[in-house]
Amino acid sequence: MDMALQAVIDAIRSFPGVTRKGKIHEVVDLLPTDSFKHVAAAEGEDAAAIEDGENYILFAADGIMESLVESDPYMAGYFAVLVNVNDIAAMGGRATAMVDVMSMSDEILCGRMLRGMEEGVRRFKVPIVGGHTHPDCKYHAIDISIIGTVKKGDIILSSTAEPGDDIVMVMDLDGHYPKNIPYAWVTTLDKDPKLVQRQMEAAAVVAEEHLVHSGKDMSNPGCVGTLGMMLESSCMGATVDLDKIPVPSSEKDDFIHWLLAYQGCGFVYACPPENSQRVIDIFSKVGCAGAVVGKVDDSLQLKLSMDGEKGVLFDFSKDIITGCRPKARRHRTF
Amino acid sequence: MDMALQAVIDAIRSFPGVTRKGKIHEVVDLLPTDSFKHVAAAEGEDAAAIEDGENYILFAADGIMESLVESDPYMAGYFAVLVNVNDIAAMGGRATAMVDVMSMSDEILCGRMLRGMEEGVRRFKVPIVGGHTHPDCKYHAIDISIIGTVKKGDIILSSTAEPGDDIVMVMDLDGHYPKNIPYAWVTTLDKDPKLVQRQMEAAAVVAEEHLVHSGKDMSNPGCVGTLGMMLESSCMGATVDLDKIPVPSSEKDDFIHWLLAYQGCGFVYACPPENSQRVIDIFSKVGCAGAVVGKVDDSLQLKLSMDGEKGVLFDFSKDIITGCRPKARRHRTF
Repeated sequence: MDMALQAVIDAIRSFPGVTRKGKIHEVVDLLPTDSFKHVAAAEGEDAAAIEDGENYILFAADGIMESLVESDPYMAGYFAVLVNVNDIAAMGGRATAMVDVMSMSDEILCGRMLRGMEEGVRRFKVPIVGGHTHPDCKYHAIDISIIGTVKKGDIILSSTAEPGDDIVMVMDLDGHYPKNIPYAWVTTLDKDPKLVQRQMEAAAVVAEEHLVHSGKDMSNPGCVGTLGMMLESSCMGATVDLDKIPVPSSEKDDFIHWLLAYQGCGFVYACPPENSQRVIDIFSKVGCAGAVVGKVDDSLQLKLSMDGEKGVLFDFSKDIITGCRPKARRHRTF
Repeated sequence: MDMALQAVIDAIRSFPGVTRKGKIHEVVDLLPTDSFKHVAAAEGEDAAAIEDGENYILFAADGIMESLVESDPYMAGYFAVLVNVNDIAAMGGRATAMVDVMSMSDEILCGRMLRGMEEGVRRFKVPIVGGHTHPDCKYHAIDISIIGTVKKGDIILSSTAEPGDDIVMVMDLDGHYPKNIPYAWVTTLDKDPKLVQRQMEAAAVVAEEHLVHSGKDMSNPGCVGTLGMMLESSCMGATVDLDKIPVPSSEKDDFIHWLLAYQGCGFVYACPPENSQRVIDIFSKVGCAGAVVGKVDDSLQLKLSMDGEKGVLFDFSKDIITGCRPKARRHRTF
């Protein structure tokens, strides 16, 4: 293997957006949900799924890193909303409400954070219905939790990719990296809120049409790292051709950066090959680029190719990203 | 007025558990929920209520003060669960699931916090189904968010007390103040988990029997401060005889401390006088003391009496605790 692909592999494997996920299983292992029958999905999913008649209540939480809260409180407030809304969209659901916990020691900073949250509420049309404020903290933080709803038959899990599935990536290429969050591709702040809402709705349509076996939103580990989490949860492997991943022409010169970026609107799906074009078309209508970038297999290895080179990014027989083995797959042996 | 009651009034009015609530309305004012039709209740309630067919989804969040996280991480983890479970019980609902956001810089402390959460899950039988972990923070924090469910006709709001209602307080007197949390009356940690669950269930039974107009769990502002929040939300006043408030015999000498304490299992209700005994009986069966301690009126003043003295604690024509005017009462004029 030549150096170029190895640089990509090294960058992804050592990226904090990936390595920070390694603690998750320690929490999950201590707090198992197996004995709670009303919990249909939890560990390793973007949101938990709780029984609710014909539907599931989707339930997730995300916090914003301290460094962002301090460097750009407005963006921190906005991102706290964005990342949560994306978690519900990833599951094929529609978000209904959020609650927040805000910690602050500085009124001006807090006001900026609040205005970022307010903008998030306005753009995604999901209300913040309550929460808790710590007015006298030594630190600044914003955590948001979200609920949504999805019909039982429509839910999209991370843990159910199947051998032979196409890997489809869809992402909004019209964005920028803000000064204070260099690894976040911001696509939603400059757009008409109606288009932003239609992008989230596209993910729900993919779910309702039962087009995919598995899906996730492209979060802190970046597009390929997020695929890695899906494969780990699904106990699968894959081959991916990096040359096929959509990339804005302005970002081709810094392709590794692009692969590591949080996507404002980006999803990775595993779907039967006959459905791939339909998934791409649904997102194309809301301004997102899409492509089939690879194939799922049962090798437990995520194998990459680029410019004719080949290499292995993760081998889940020995590597972990989150270390989670979701409920749906826990009894699978390999 | 003599000095004894004035000391009580001064203590409650200056208690951080009360004064810290004053920031809430600043957040609420910036993030109104009026335009979201599926939000049935939010501002000023212990949990928000989201439309869900014949039911409401109850949704709340609470964070634990940094000082407790640092002085006693186990208790912080346990309390993060406790305060959330109480929020759902206060609304007359049953808790179904929680998510957490944990921030940590120290593995040992984090492990203790997790074990406290684990104990909370075991005692209240509500699973933690997901969340987010910040493994590389400069501070330590634990925030939990909770969902629950309640039939639409059964919900208990904070904002619907009526003139002529009895004020009933029920609380578990069998407890202690832990060393690191002097203002928390801990009642649930030493008891059989089954009894702890039956205590929360008692609050749901009060709701199902439609016994009360309004209710809240006794949280950081203490029993009288919590009543104050209910009256403020309801745009009501009341007379309360402090001598009638249940108090453990061991705590009579430090009655002010008792009035300020967070109650591990304590609720204040406003109910038609003919239902008061039934409410007290329901909680008596699960080991809680109860009493009619006063009457709701439309004066906007919370008037206290003790040992023959009388005084005004809050006058909501000029004082605020949270400053929230819930949706249900927002259009009321006074």
